[in-house]
Amino acid sequence: MSKPANIAILGASGYTGAELVRLISTHPLMVIKALSAERKAGQQMAAVFPHLRHLDLPVLSKIDEIDFGGIDLVFCALPHGLSQAIVKELPASVKVVDLGADFRLRDPKAYEKWYNRPHDAPEIQPNAVYGLTEFYRGQIKGARLVAGTGCNAATVQFALRPLISSGVIDVDQIVCDLKNGISGAGRGLKENMLYAERSQDVMTYSYGGKHRHLGEFDQEFSALAGRPVEIVFTPNLVPANRGILATCYLRGDANEVHACLEKSYADEDFVITLPFGEMPKMSDVQGSNYVHIGVAGDRMPGRVMVVATLDNLTKGSSGQALQNANLMLGFDEMTGLKLAPVFP
Amino acid sequence: MSKPANIAILGASGYTGAELVRLISTHPLMVIKALSAERKAGQQMAAVFPHLRHLDLPVLSKIDEIDFGGIDLVFCALPHGLSQAIVKELPASVKVVDLGADFRLRDPKAYEKWYNRPHDAPEIQPNAVYGLTEFYRGQIKGARLVAGTGCNAATVQFALRPLISSGVIDVDQIVCDLKNGISGAGRGLKENMLYAERSQDVMTYSYGGKHRHLGEFDQEFSALAGRPVEIVFTPNLVPANRGILATCYLRGDANEVHACLEKSYADEDFVITLPFGEMPKMSDVQGSNYVHIGVAGDRMPGRVMVVATLDNLTKGSSGQALQNANLMLGFDEMTGLKLAPVFP
Amino acid sequence: MSKPANIAILGASGYTGAELVRLISTHPLMVIKALSAERKAGQQMAAVFPHLRHLDLPVLSKIDEIDFGGIDLVFCALPHGLSQAIVKELPASVKVVDLGADFRLRDPKAYEKWYNRPHDAPEIQPNAVYGLTEFYRGQIKGARLVAGTGCNAATVQFALRPLISSGVIDVDQIVCDLKNGISGAGRGLKENMLYAERSQDVMTYSYGGKHRHLGEFDQEFSALAGRPVEIVFTPNLVPANRGILATCYLRGDANEVHACLEKSYADEDFVITLPFGEMPKMSDVQGSNYVHIGVAGDRMPGRVMVVATLDNLTKGSSGQALQNANLMLGFDEMTGLKLAPVFP
Amino acid sequence: MSKPANIAILGASGYTGAELVRLISTHPLMVIKALSAERKAGQQMAAVFPHLRHLDLPVLSKIDEIDFGGIDLVFCALPHGLSQAIVKELPASVKVVDLGADFRLRDPKAYEKWYNRPHDAPEIQPNAVYGLTEFYRGQIKGARLVAGTGCNAATVQFALRPLISSGVIDVDQIVCDLKNGISGAGRGLKENMLYAERSQDVMTYSYGGKHRHLGEFDQEFSALAGRPVEIVFTPNLVPANRGILATCYLRGDANEVHACLEKSYADEDFVITLPFGEMPKMSDVQGSNYVHIGVAGDRMPGRVMVVATLDNLTKGSSGQALQNANLMLGFDEMTGLKLAPVFP
Repeated sequence: MSKPANIAILGASGYTGAELVRLISTHPLMVIKALSAERKAGQQMAAVFPHLRHLDLPVLSKIDEIDFGGIDLVFCALPHGLSQAIVKELPASVKVVDLGADFRLRDPKAYEKWYNRPHDAPEIQPNAVYGLTEFYRGQIKGARLVAGTGCNAATVQFALRPLISSGVIDVDQIVCDLKNGISGAGRGLKENMLYAERSQDVMTYSYGGKHRHLGEFDQEFSALAGRPVEIVFTPNLVPANRGILATCYLRGDANEVHACLEKSYADEDFVITLPFGEMPKMSDVQGSNYVHIGVAGDRMPGRVMVVATLDNLTKGSSGQALQNANLMLGFDEMTGLKLAPVFP
Repeated sequence: MSKPANIAILGASGYTGAELVRLISTHPLMVIKALSAERKAGQQMAAVFPHLRHLDLPVLSKIDEIDFGGIDLVFCALPHGLSQAIVKELPASVKVVDLGADFRLRDPKAYEKWYNRPHDAPEIQPNAVYGLTEFYRGQIKGARLVAGTGCNAATVQFALRPLISSGVIDVDQIVCDLKNGISGAGRGLKENMLYAERSQDVMTYSYGGKHRHLGEFDQEFSALAGRPVEIVFTPNLVPANRGILATCYLRGDANEVHACLEKSYADEDFVITLPFGEMPKMSDVQGSNYVHIGVAGDRMPGRVMVVATLDNLTKGSSGQALQNANLMLGFDEMTGLKLAPVFP
Repeated sequence: MSKPANIAILGASGYTGAELVRLISTHPLMVIKALSAERKAGQQMAAVFPHLRHLDLPVLSKIDEIDFGGIDLVFCALPHGLSQAIVKELPASVKVVDLGADFRLRDPKAYEKWYNRPHDAPEIQPNAVYGLTEFYRGQIKGARLVAGTGCNAATVQFALRPLISSGVIDVDQIVCDLKNGISGAGRGLKENMLYAERSQDVMTYSYGGKHRHLGEFDQEFSALAGRPVEIVFTPNLVPANRGILATCYLRGDANEVHACLEKSYADEDFVITLPFGEMPKMSDVQGSNYVHIGVAGDRMPGRVMVVATLDNLTKGSSGQALQNANLMLGFDEMTGLKLAPVFP
Repeated sequence: MSKPANIAILGASGYTGAELVRLISTHPLMVIKALSAERKAGQQMAAVFPHLRHLDLPVLSKIDEIDFGGIDLVFCALPHGLSQAIVKELPASVKVVDLGADFRLRDPKAYEKWYNRPHDAPEIQPNAVYGLTEFYRGQIKGARLVAGTGCNAATVQFALRPLISSGVIDVDQIVCDLKNGISGAGRGLKENMLYAERSQDVMTYSYGGKHRHLGEFDQEFSALAGRPVEIVFTPNLVPANRGILATCYLRGDANEVHACLEKSYADEDFVITLPFGEMPKMSDVQGSNYVHIGVAGDRMPGRVMVVATLDNLTKGSSGQALQNANLMLGFDEMTGLKLAPVFP
């Protein structure tokens, strides 16, 4: 049996930080040695997240109070833009999984375009491996720095990557409409994230080609297709805590599309292709690291709908991060991640 | 001032029946004389809908116990398929607004195709006027029988009719993804409509060209375009009581599309086109008869998104029905319908 | 017919301000002449509350930009503590309904005790009439300044006032457990009011004799009983936008309690006593100015439960305020307030 | 390491059945050999509960098709009243954990009183051990049949048992007001369990001394007190899938009450007493087997509030059942049950 790894989580007072703690709490080979939260430093985790009260956890600290000497791997669950400066100061012996957006785009110009600022660590950026485990497994195993994908970016890529690679769909005719649980907006204070504003509502946001995850789609899909690919992508907040359900309207043969996905994911434990014509629901995967994908045709020949769903906090960020960390540390990839979804 | 009209509501124990009672309760020119509910006949409305307890209403009765002699107008809020036999037995002097699906399709073959049964009253069917008030106002004023539209059908038509009529979009490239409040499924008992199943979930249903409202789209859009038109249309149940938000992915010039909608609805009180680039939320219209429509372009030229939202129980059924009844009875169209949305 | 009154609403960017606008929008005798919102001055109301987009409303302004010369009545929907200084500067000709806490407590010492600050307008405070319409109607009619009650305070008082007055319950054994919709917390930014925190949760707050509405209970119930009365009172946030359901555990004869309430409210249009043994639900009154009250006994003789429910934004604040304004302006008390609850 | 046990779950198509499967799916020492569901026999579990699709599970069967020969332990998650006849026919070698109400009451007369029918297996009834693990651990270890408690009954007993045993509260003055997640009502079809009815609502039910869990309170609390004890107990459905939050209004010294609970649960892993004055929220334990208990005083001396919360499907039924099964099979009690709560 492997030796347990010592873990630090930076940004433990946000939802993805808490989700990492939840998942690691039953992981047999990880020990949480440090938890950071700049503004809540000095507090117990139980004060910030009472649902973790039963665990024996380190007190929240500032990042510069952490001794990284004995740490094997760091999860950065910091707000976008903060990891860059921090990661480059970490000892080279420490492996890093970044859950934010800082290292997702390989091209510094693309980063600057989508995030409106130059990158602070361009010397590290090209070494980061894109963290969509099922497609970058080989590189992740040997990586020092893995960049977790956007949660929307993960969902849509599970639906589309095999289809673009194999050429069974028209890449110029992709429309993706997403239904998003609200935890994806994080724990920051915004009027339109109050309960009374989001309950009973559907709110379209970052529409019209402006959402930053488009940078990831451009990068990944263009690479797969071998030429520039752009997609239409619209997220919509729905009244649910967790989950993303991506509805992809495509052109192609529905049976070929289904066969392609089924074959691509046949050996993947976390990605399940449903029988042809069945559709997943958002509640089918909440609290788990699983992805469910459905395919259906239309009465109009040549039209096909692919729907993929995952939990944005698990497979869309913290579960994906743990899956990658398992690989980087030489553990079985599924360790600590086999939890079944919680329903209802 | 007009003389008040005597009203009967058939099917008063369902959600659209209750919504009619709510709206009529502050209507100055309608008096509810009869309420039917076959299985709950003999009960007070307050026992079936305690929120209407403050009103002085007739006891629920069976339809054949109602004396239609003094009734000016009947609202049929019956389950699909039941109105046909009933409407044809009503006295010719009674005007009828049907909220169900029985008279929406003018072509008996289309009815048979989408509803899997022959029509019971084919002799009346051609005389029914399609009840989308803003587009059939002239015919509705003189009609004896008006067929309320499907709630999804209404939402999408508000987004698309002017665009198809004016030719500013490509009618062969229409994709409509709907987010639907759960009251649209009615009060019938189904396992997948239980609170614990629908809470925190998004469920795609009747996808793949199978939803019956496609019959209405085929009929209306083909007539507007002057040739057969088919659209892609997918409804998705979201955890909200009321509301439909229709996201329409289109090909056309975004500014032209916006200008077309703005001009088309300039004189319509209930249909509001938002400033270019703004999007409506589902909670902006709940409890009201208003429709909000937003238009935005995309980074890809020639792509445009139109989003329309309305309350399925109000503008999508009972409010629309009342608006039509006002016209049929010679009242001001907005009487009893100016209620502002309830938010939060 | 009366002449319409000119209205100003101070604090129009909060939920109670928006609710006042909603209710007044169909009021035949009130015209909104000014809307204030300090931080959002210069914006259209539609930008702050898109559900009011269909209305022709004044632009939001700062209070000191308003000309109160032509204003007949001002609604103050300001955060607690701000009305005091403002009300004392208003022209004497302007009537005022304050929806905040500033004038609810007649005793300046009580105010200071519960709100931790001395009152800024002690010279006005004694002239304010407590705004529980059904019990202070006579004084409200002639008042210049009416102080709206706390929303919890209103709910519990509807359940208990007649019982304390008539002596049918033991005033030393009152326990009130409230279930509260989340709009009662207002539109301010707090982490624990985010959707993802409040969804799927019940949170007890201000427990242990600390909630400020206890000041109102002490004042009112002691006056009714003729001696000091204290009650146990615990509010609990539940995942709903609107509504308060107050469960009162009492000692007395259940039939006597029911008879007392039924008799007390026999002539009140907005307060409905249910048949003995039936209980109201929170959704029975949402969006309306109605109060529903239920009474049931227990298998233990001498124990009785009284449950009262109302909409915190309507009968608990803005609807109550409008009801009082109607009286102060000589209008029929129910004008603009007969809207039926919205269900589902 | 122990040898894995072979498990059968009767009634696998209900929520508690699915929760058992979820929990056992990561239990290292249990193997599910049979799943029954009379009306859904022949279906895959994935068709009934798609969130369990990733598991390799037996096809649903009828009970009489199961070979109990190789089964070590049976979980009965059947509707109330059905276990009696089934349990008495099982081979004596099979251990049984019943999640229903059939064996909770030791006195056949009490059973008949609360369930309106004579017991079908009175010869077995006295041998059943009451399944509140923390208080019946010794007996459960050696039992063949353990009767799971009611979910409300469990919650309130965690709050009150130590207080009654130690005499620190007045047992004649206990009032318990519960807030209940909706999965507790099960998957049966009832109009008032539809999403549109329960969303945004609070509904009081089985009030007035009529709820069947009172039979359990009478039995247990009277035994602890050594004389008949009755409590006031009112459940209220709130819009949440999972969770019970029990607010207990008591007479006693708040500090003594807190000290008593803290001491009683000092060695219990699943039951956590919060620091004095802090209160648990329902979302602090969802998806887990933990119980959180808070204690606060009141401004009125001698009044004390104890709030306990747990997940009705986990610690309130299936988690409790698994905890008991672990004991009966000689496993560590916490095996498979250390999952952290899922938040948000």
